[in-house]
Amino acid sequence: MSPLYVVGAGPGDPKLLTLKALELLQEADVVAYGDLVPEDIVALAKGAARVRIGQRREEHERAVEALIEEAREKRVVVLKNGDPTIFGRGLEICRKAEARGVPCEVVPGVSSFTAAAALHRIELTDGKELRHVALLAYPHFGPDVVSNIRADTLVIFMMGNKLVEVANALRETCPSGEVYICINVSRGGSCRRATIEELPSYAGQRPALIIVRRCWRPDPAK
Amino acid sequence: MSPLYVVGAGPGDPKLLTLKALELLQEADVVAYGDLVPEDIVALAKGAARVRIGQRREEHERAVEALIEEAREKRVVVLKNGDPTIFGRGLEICRKAEARGVPCEVVPGVSSFTAAAALHRIELTDGKELRHVALLAYPHFGPDVVSNIRADTLVIFMMGNKLVEVANALRETCPSGEVYICINVSRGGSCRRATIEELPSYAGQRPALIIVRRCWRPDPAK
Repeated sequence: MSPLYVVGAGPGDPKLLTLKALELLQEADVVAYGDLVPEDIVALAKGAARVRIGQRREEHERAVEALIEEAREKRVVVLKNGDPTIFGRGLEICRKAEARGVPCEVVPGVSSFTAAAALHRIELTDGKELRHVALLAYPHFGPDVVSNIRADTLVIFMMGNKLVEVANALRETCPSGEVYICINVSRGGSCRRATIEELPSYAGQRPALIIVRRCWRPDPAK
Repeated sequence: MSPLYVVGAGPGDPKLLTLKALELLQEADVVAYGDLVPEDIVALAKGAARVRIGQRREEHERAVEALIEEAREKRVVVLKNGDPTIFGRGLEICRKAEARGVPCEVVPGVSSFTAAAALHRIELTDGKELRHVALLAYPHFGPDVVSNIRADTLVIFMMGNKLVEVANALRETCPSGEVYICINVSRGGSCRRATIEELPSYAGQRPALIIVRRCWRPDPAK
């Protein structure tokens, strides 16, 4: 039985796929993918049947169960936007498959946050003032979480639908942080400098990545 | 003038290079690389002259200056282990090049920490107890930094030469964290579960990546 492969599709640009991902797509009998994986990447699996996976948890779980069963006979590739281990549930799929006796492998990919940093020239760390990076995702995020994490740079992975909450959390915990909102980073999209107040106006543009540099708390002594 | 390219070489396995990286290597006149980039990746730049870049800051800076000058006439690729924007000074090289009128691009790559998570099955986040990840690197790291960053999962990028300090910091701030030490993750290496006390015994095995899950402070009420 060939393994079920959970494969990082990278940030969107097909050239940012790994050689391994391309090879697995070309050999696949079935390719499964969510909304965020672009059509021209799915199309690289030329001979494969296509399965679109819904966003909602129940849809996702039903689709994964069916794919695990198919993997007993066919070469199945599940494409995950970015890297499957950064908020991607990639290992969860493999745990389920293996519990049913289906071997499974996760293939890492280029994450959208490093693509945003590289392509839009946002230094996440500089070896001086910016010493560390914290990665957060909705829904596991709120003012309490942001105020507990004291990293110089924050990266927030989200769907663009909780921007009011993000703005509130940032206003409280790093009001003078340098905020960027990134959309479609490797497909002609952008990372725009925004004020905290402007963030909610980007609602609905998904997926979004918010990068905040110099997320420092106001000095209580002042 | 073609741009100077600063390219993520990924975690070590040549199959985890991006299609873009392979293409740039195949077209390169000059390929520059540090100690951590494996020989079989450098060898993909078949026609290229090779430049080995030293680890020390002065050597690195001298080499970068020479490469920027060469990029005026030749296609130069600078390979960076993993992704060039995660503690990789990738954007710093481009800033210097552009300051001298040489165009420059950074090509993201698969980072070694997501490769460790994918290949060695270490869930960085689980959507429940593990809600966020913090990325740290030596030398910008110490007990004070670790105790300030309250992320559920910590990833420490390092050279394997400060393990006593790491152990001290972890003992103070998350004594019951699940610690893994990862070496050569995509080239037959391993991520081993270790106790905090065992960490110093791995000294000298570089590069090392330390992943700590459930880095929670002891509850002061108890």
